[in-house]
Amino acid sequence: MKFARLGEAGSETPVVIDGDRTFDLRPVTSDVNGDFLADDPVGRTRAALDAGSLPEITDAASLRIGSPIARPSAVICIGQNYAAHARESGAEPPTVPIMFLKTPNTVVGPDDTVTIPRGSEKTDWEVELGIVIGTRTAYLDAVEDAAAHIAGYVVANDVSERTFQMEVSGGQWSKGKIAFGFNPTGPWLVTADEVDPQNLRLRSWVNGEPRQDSDTSDMIFDVHTIVHHLSQYVTLEPGDLILTGTPQGVAFGGKFPYLKAGDVVEVEIEGLGHQRQEFVAWEAGK
Amino acid sequence: MKFARLGEAGSETPVVIDGDRTFDLRPVTSDVNGDFLADDPVGRTRAALDAGSLPEITDAASLRIGSPIARPSAVICIGQNYAAHARESGAEPPTVPIMFLKTPNTVVGPDDTVTIPRGSEKTDWEVELGIVIGTRTAYLDAVEDAAAHIAGYVVANDVSERTFQMEVSGGQWSKGKIAFGFNPTGPWLVTADEVDPQNLRLRSWVNGEPRQDSDTSDMIFDVHTIVHHLSQYVTLEPGDLILTGTPQGVAFGGKFPYLKAGDVVEVEIEGLGHQRQEFVAWEAGK
Repeated sequence: MKFARLGEAGSETPVVIDGDRTFDLRPVTSDVNGDFLADDPVGRTRAALDAGSLPEITDAASLRIGSPIARPSAVICIGQNYAAHARESGAEPPTVPIMFLKTPNTVVGPDDTVTIPRGSEKTDWEVELGIVIGTRTAYLDAVEDAAAHIAGYVVANDVSERTFQMEVSGGQWSKGKIAFGFNPTGPWLVTADEVDPQNLRLRSWVNGEPRQDSDTSDMIFDVHTIVHHLSQYVTLEPGDLILTGTPQGVAFGGKFPYLKAGDVVEVEIEGLGHQRQEFVAWEAGK
Repeated sequence: MKFARLGEAGSETPVVIDGDRTFDLRPVTSDVNGDFLADDPVGRTRAALDAGSLPEITDAASLRIGSPIARPSAVICIGQNYAAHARESGAEPPTVPIMFLKTPNTVVGPDDTVTIPRGSEKTDWEVELGIVIGTRTAYLDAVEDAAAHIAGYVVANDVSERTFQMEVSGGQWSKGKIAFGFNPTGPWLVTADEVDPQNLRLRSWVNGEPRQDSDTSDMIFDVHTIVHHLSQYVTLEPGDLILTGTPQGVAFGGKFPYLKAGDVVEVEIEGLGHQRQEFVAWEAGK
């Protein structure tokens, strides 16, 4: 099942996509948020679809696509989770998951314009598989217990500014990860029952030229290991977003130029959808 | 003016403390949240007090004290912002502010019991001055512009687990900063008009014995510099909490033992109030 949020930023309508038809989810929930995701979203939506109680949205193709999840309470990121990307970043592959945080206000729609921050010279792309938490959890005893707490998966672009992240940060990466709009998410939340998360091709392009092309089977720490590990350190809340790291092929690796105004970035994960962002220059007062 | 939130966790009542009397703020706002703080909270509350439209709460002393702010959208922390603490941590004082993030679900009441995480051997205290953002801002042009975006100040304890932060983290500190309850906040939000933020004594104790005793005049980066600096990298939202770093005197410095179950931590900042937490062992299922 695919959930999405359509309409202007800040007033999106939650929808379910059933085949090639789109239905308004508001008879079931006010939003695709933690409360909805924690309480059998697939079962309740299926029952509403079967009962014919969801109005069809016939102009879906003309609407802006928002992030498929409302603003999370936390965005947790795993760093250097593909061995070849760790090496292109000058690091050995990690022996434990490395985590850092983005601010929740980075989460925007998959095709929203992204502003290159004021003073930026090293804005970069990172296609990543995103895990969306379904039910609250902490201190999971076993990796096998993780799946029950995952609502589904999304495409994310973990946009990064490398000078801010590495050179003026004292070594803490978040400063280069949190500019407004630095986390295009979606187009859909695909529910976990329909996704094999370690068997997905993920790719990115800049101005139509290929950049990243890898597969989630190459992750060092798989999604269930990540959720189990994080749960030892933080209470995961319904609707939280976990980004699982990016493969090789980013500008930071040295083979490609950083982004400049006018560039178009596309990212895609097999079965989870496609994003397209135009990057624009920062302007005072906008 | 002092705002607070009283009552059981998750259903606190917003209040204003006026001299030795406490008044229910709900005729003005549903909570001490970003919407309230962005829209002239002092003026609107003063008008309601003067009009006599706020019911007095006569049993305030018997109620649990919650965090004085509702769950923020972001908790941003500045590291090593007192030179002597940087040195006790084995680092040179930083030349730019070092920032990292805590998850918003760490924010709890000032006297709530804190659970030492499962497997923790190095749980530590950190008294810190907290800045609460009033109005949304990004890319401030000058340090002098920061004050207009600050709603007020709070006491915070940036509880930390040093093994998680330093030894199993790949160098990214957040893993040791985000256990549930690791950010006791309050008792009050004191509005900015009543606080000289660079002239406050801040102290901590463990089991009644002194630990930290310093003054915010010793900060390397002052609160206005911090807000200006952060605004270059992130859009600050109303109600966001910024912790400004801790002075020397924590267990990580090597002079004092880490916390164990049964220990009582107290932290205090001049004019902003006092906290007291009992630390307890983690138990399965609790």
